[in-house]
Amino acid sequence: MKIKVIIPNSSITFRESQVEQRKKAASPGVLVDIVSLPCGPESIESAYDEALAAPYIINEVAKAAKEDYDAVTLDCAIDTVVRAARETVKIPVISAGEASHLLALGLCRKYSIITVLHSTAEAIIENLNKAGLSNRIASVRVAKIPVLELDNNEMVFDKICLQANLAIREDGAQAIVLGCTGMFWAAERLKRELGIPVIDPGAAAVKLAEVYVSMGLSSSSIAYGRHDSLGEPLST
Amino acid sequence: MKIKVIIPNSSITFRESQVEQRKKAASPGVLVDIVSLPCGPESIESAYDEALAAPYIINEVAKAAKEDYDAVTLDCAIDTVVRAARETVKIPVISAGEASHLLALGLCRKYSIITVLHSTAEAIIENLNKAGLSNRIASVRVAKIPVLELDNNEMVFDKICLQANLAIREDGAQAIVLGCTGMFWAAERLKRELGIPVIDPGAAAVKLAEVYVSMGLSSSSIAYGRHDSLGEPLST
Amino acid sequence: MKIKVIIPNSSITFRESQVEQRKKAASPGVLVDIVSLPCGPESIESAYDEALAAPYIINEVAKAAKEDYDAVTLDCAIDTVVRAARETVKIPVISAGEASHLLALGLCRKYSIITVLHSTAEAIIENLNKAGLSNRIASVRVAKIPVLELDNNEMVFDKICLQANLAIREDGAQAIVLGCTGMFWAAERLKRELGIPVIDPGAAAVKLAEVYVSMGLSSSSIAYGRHDSLGEPLST
Amino acid sequence: MKIKVIIPNSSITFRESQVEQRKKAASPGVLVDIVSLPCGPESIESAYDEALAAPYIINEVAKAAKEDYDAVTLDCAIDTVVRAARETVKIPVISAGEASHLLALGLCRKYSIITVLHSTAEAIIENLNKAGLSNRIASVRVAKIPVLELDNNEMVFDKICLQANLAIREDGAQAIVLGCTGMFWAAERLKRELGIPVIDPGAAAVKLAEVYVSMGLSSSSIAYGRHDSLGEPLST
Amino acid sequence: MKIKVIIPNSSITFRESQVEQRKKAASPGVLVDIVSLPCGPESIESAYDEALAAPYIINEVAKAAKEDYDAVTLDCAIDTVVRAARETVKIPVISAGEASHLLALGLCRKYSIITVLHSTAEAIIENLNKAGLSNRIASVRVAKIPVLELDNNEMVFDKICLQANLAIREDGAQAIVLGCTGMFWAAERLKRELGIPVIDPGAAAVKLAEVYVSMGLSSSSIAYGRHDSLGEPLST
Amino acid sequence: MKIKVIIPNSSITFRESQVEQRKKAASPGVLVDIVSLPCGPESIESAYDEALAAPYIINEVAKAAKEDYDAVTLDCAIDTVVRAARETVKIPVISAGEASHLLALGLCRKYSIITVLHSTAEAIIENLNKAGLSNRIASVRVAKIPVLELDNNEMVFDKICLQANLAIREDGAQAIVLGCTGMFWAAERLKRELGIPVIDPGAAAVKLAEVYVSMGLSSSSIAYGRHDSLGEPLST
Repeated sequence: MKIKVIIPNSSITFRESQVEQRKKAASPGVLVDIVSLPCGPESIESAYDEALAAPYIINEVAKAAKEDYDAVTLDCAIDTVVRAARETVKIPVISAGEASHLLALGLCRKYSIITVLHSTAEAIIENLNKAGLSNRIASVRVAKIPVLELDNNEMVFDKICLQANLAIREDGAQAIVLGCTGMFWAAERLKRELGIPVIDPGAAAVKLAEVYVSMGLSSSSIAYGRHDSLGEPLST
Repeated sequence: MKIKVIIPNSSITFRESQVEQRKKAASPGVLVDIVSLPCGPESIESAYDEALAAPYIINEVAKAAKEDYDAVTLDCAIDTVVRAARETVKIPVISAGEASHLLALGLCRKYSIITVLHSTAEAIIENLNKAGLSNRIASVRVAKIPVLELDNNEMVFDKICLQANLAIREDGAQAIVLGCTGMFWAAERLKRELGIPVIDPGAAAVKLAEVYVSMGLSSSSIAYGRHDSLGEPLST
Repeated sequence: MKIKVIIPNSSITFRESQVEQRKKAASPGVLVDIVSLPCGPESIESAYDEALAAPYIINEVAKAAKEDYDAVTLDCAIDTVVRAARETVKIPVISAGEASHLLALGLCRKYSIITVLHSTAEAIIENLNKAGLSNRIASVRVAKIPVLELDNNEMVFDKICLQANLAIREDGAQAIVLGCTGMFWAAERLKRELGIPVIDPGAAAVKLAEVYVSMGLSSSSIAYGRHDSLGEPLST
Repeated sequence: MKIKVIIPNSSITFRESQVEQRKKAASPGVLVDIVSLPCGPESIESAYDEALAAPYIINEVAKAAKEDYDAVTLDCAIDTVVRAARETVKIPVISAGEASHLLALGLCRKYSIITVLHSTAEAIIENLNKAGLSNRIASVRVAKIPVLELDNNEMVFDKICLQANLAIREDGAQAIVLGCTGMFWAAERLKRELGIPVIDPGAAAVKLAEVYVSMGLSSSSIAYGRHDSLGEPLST
Repeated sequence: MKIKVIIPNSSITFRESQVEQRKKAASPGVLVDIVSLPCGPESIESAYDEALAAPYIINEVAKAAKEDYDAVTLDCAIDTVVRAARETVKIPVISAGEASHLLALGLCRKYSIITVLHSTAEAIIENLNKAGLSNRIASVRVAKIPVLELDNNEMVFDKICLQANLAIREDGAQAIVLGCTGMFWAAERLKRELGIPVIDPGAAAVKLAEVYVSMGLSSSSIAYGRHDSLGEPLST
Repeated sequence: MKIKVIIPNSSITFRESQVEQRKKAASPGVLVDIVSLPCGPESIESAYDEALAAPYIINEVAKAAKEDYDAVTLDCAIDTVVRAARETVKIPVISAGEASHLLALGLCRKYSIITVLHSTAEAIIENLNKAGLSNRIASVRVAKIPVLELDNNEMVFDKICLQANLAIREDGAQAIVLGCTGMFWAAERLKRELGIPVIDPGAAAVKLAEVYVSMGLSSSSIAYGRHDSLGEPLST
């Protein structure tokens, strides 16, 4: 099985900091390639960034099918251009934010998302409303750290941990979803300190990609195809 | 008052077919300019189209503020990149789909949208779920006509009218929202034949733009600003 | 265009304090007449007041059609007898509360209403639940000021401003809707101090009345008519 | 225990046709008085009717407390002026529509309401939305019979029974609520023929009135009082 | 009329502390028998307890029909095995939790439940979500008292009263539902001290049982029967 | 990794018909043991069956932890006793129904469930309401086949396929979830014939069990623990 992880930004440093973790998430025998964009925004922190990155992401998705990948993950917790990506290829497209929500739903009644910025929180809330899942959310909280400053250090960990603790004590969170793929390094330690499940969205996407591929399942052509179009079908 | 109507596709013919109607929608003394995109998809019929058009739309929005427009309308019933546009400029950004829904809410308890294709129906339903308005929708119905074949003729009118009638009789629609700006020419005749309100989204957007400008209101900076960003503020 | 603004109470002083503002809200060339009730409650602060005022309001609405008005606004933020009024006449009936909610929906994801009393808050919440809009509300807050003491002074402004600030900081409000038409004078100053949109319901109703009249739209006869009645149709 | 049943219309014939059934609904030792309005609409079939009847209903409610009744029922399936009535008196006010919904909720997952006219259906749907109960409704169906023609005869029964059967077969109804108090005579026979629960709203109100009185419970003063008013408390 | 109250635990002491109150709740002429389980958990404080008690409860329900009872109440605020019980017998099965919610809905817009433990709170919230009633709930609060320590004393009363007060002041509760039948003794005093309705679930179940029996109503066979089964019908 | 699949009925034949498929669902290196109950109902087709089987299921779950399994799946599409099972052990408990819903959510906007009987449909609908997922459901349809007659033959396939086709054409389903684990053999063929995703719940549970174990995640102790209990912690 071959999975293509698309990081939807153009930061080489950010990509390098993620590669090992995504490969580690894969099961034995599963090949994972991690790519980022040739140009476009250095990070996705707003709908403005999403709009500028959109064509480059779709291009990487379209190439994935020709490159014989079995699945694509969009490695972003705000689920950027997921509908467009599913319209583009027939192979499964798993988005990190959505994948982390689906796994959280199976572990508790209410969970909170800890994200980086107010603008990403807005995007996540819109996605949850769109998905009809907001009734399962305790809160979406903001750690106030730009994506490219998400280094593995005490200060950053403390900001994330503070919001997670507030989510549990004040909002009724029973599990935590990390609201940015760049926070992956905090998941394990946070889980130990809080005593409840903490979900890393990038890993969640890789795992669900494996599940869908092994079960022979992909996006519904009724939901994402252009099946009433008179023209040519989309590539792949 | 100066309003910029941005048609988010690159079809010159389509733009020409719309100009007169948008100008007619404006109140006396309100200047309306209608632009389309220099390149990108010829029509917006899917999320795939939206992704490819996104940067060009945002560019037109960003320019609008520098060109001293008082408001922008995004002339598309599937509300493409509206969040990104509102993050980009401080002037009001009114999207045709959203504007038509807001006006419909004031005229009835339940309404239906008649749109062009299955893929635009999916996009509209996602927008309504995101907005929390799906409980006010009787149905979203598809006339099965590509955007660029929406000519003002009997066959096209009949397809739209058939779906509108079904929406009333089978789904409980009490008003009709046209789910594509290119259907504008059918609004008046449809209203007469059905005896209930029919809303043209392109005109709705122009009228609401006038309202917001005259009341001195624009998008909330908390909802759409990047107010916790450490960098520079967005243009205008 | 001629619009009749019906203030649904019998206080002459209150009416006088409102006249100028409603006329100012109208576009050039639009005639606005502001009437109040010949008798009934001096203010609408509860469902009890609404019940006692109901027949007098309906009478003013019924007269409006005979007086050749193009639209009626019910100048009350708790949307009193709006269904009955729409059953009574064919011209558009715009209610100040509903109008302010529709405009707020186009400016943000979540907003708060600042109203006068606990009892008007209950009425507004019921209206929002009825309209299916409660998922877009951050909170409904009470300034604890009777309608007839809503004078333009510092103490009243401070009470409103305090609640608006709490709505933003504690409830997540991204815009403010004034929950009483008598608060109109605070809108502009509040907007400047808070830095987010503040909506005056009385002006909102006048502006939406203009929109509906200019677009040739009125209440759906299916939603508000008695179209399956065997008797006579309602007046006008 | 003394219960006052207020029929919110002025038809003497209608009142006479109801008296025996309401008395029969009462438990041994419970005194039930049935009154109608001295003037106002002959039937409540629309929000227009409700508006005109409102002050007369409130007057009867206010008198009930002085007349030493232990509870009031508003004998109408569209729950007219129930909020105002609860603000007026401290004794329990039970509304026939609401009472029938509460009893139905305890018997099934989804039920349908069969009402008289399209306009009463609209009113009932608004009430259910306001109460947050619409997710428990299979459908609201219209028998197309004016209230004052609801005589106990085969033709009327057949119209009601037809809609109830459609509600079961096409809408998934698991129980039936009669959507007009004047349909009471059909309840027992309908239950036998359909094999599922059928609820008479007028009787439901009397029974719940007995329950609340015997448990010493009445409307919440926080929900229905004007507890932050500076003026006089409401009567009783 | 004969009602069987089934306390779904095996504690003899707990049963004895409840008997008098349930008999007092019944109307004159109504016979009430209170039974508990021959074995199984001593109290129902979790889904684990519910699972272990389930067959014993169903056995008592099945016997009730053969013993000629007119109705059964399941005397537990977390509505244990109510669906299974309704599938088992044709007579009405009223569950204390559900009954208390239905009565609360008729007294206010929003209410809170004060229950014993975090685990019973989870169960109650799930029931309210399942019933579609969560939009009418201000909060579910936990007094942190195991069921078998719910003695009528000051310390226990203070814990319940504290949470009820917080529910009113911080959560917007307009009425209180006791979230454990063992709290019955606190209802009357709590109502006096808080000034709003307080509902005892055990009594609520007895009263609603009387209502359903006297109206000739029982659980819908479509909702709870196995009417498409090819095998034998369930007992009674 | 060792996973224990608990089939919550006592039919030896049914268990034998399932074993191979569950083992096939597991990834290389994952050991899967399939057990059924020593006694209790032969199939789970109603809440009545669930109540009788409950203690035996919980016993098998409790043993699983002592037997050093890494996860348990409850092999039933109606998610029987899942809350109780999660309270019982610290290892992940995955329920087949819930697992199939979570995977479906990632493939489409709306899906339908095809289940065996009306009574299992009711159970599934309650679970979806409880989980807040009903807005993502196109329909729950009934094939009218008892669980123990779910043999792999044309007649049974045709009944399932008919309902799936109706779900697509009349209800808007974009994917199908099989509403009984015994239908597993139909999944692959149905997917080919319908052209959309079809999810086998038993396999879905095994795959999600693998995901949670490999990510080190289990049920939230806040959601399912009895963390405010004064007594001993639950086993394992």
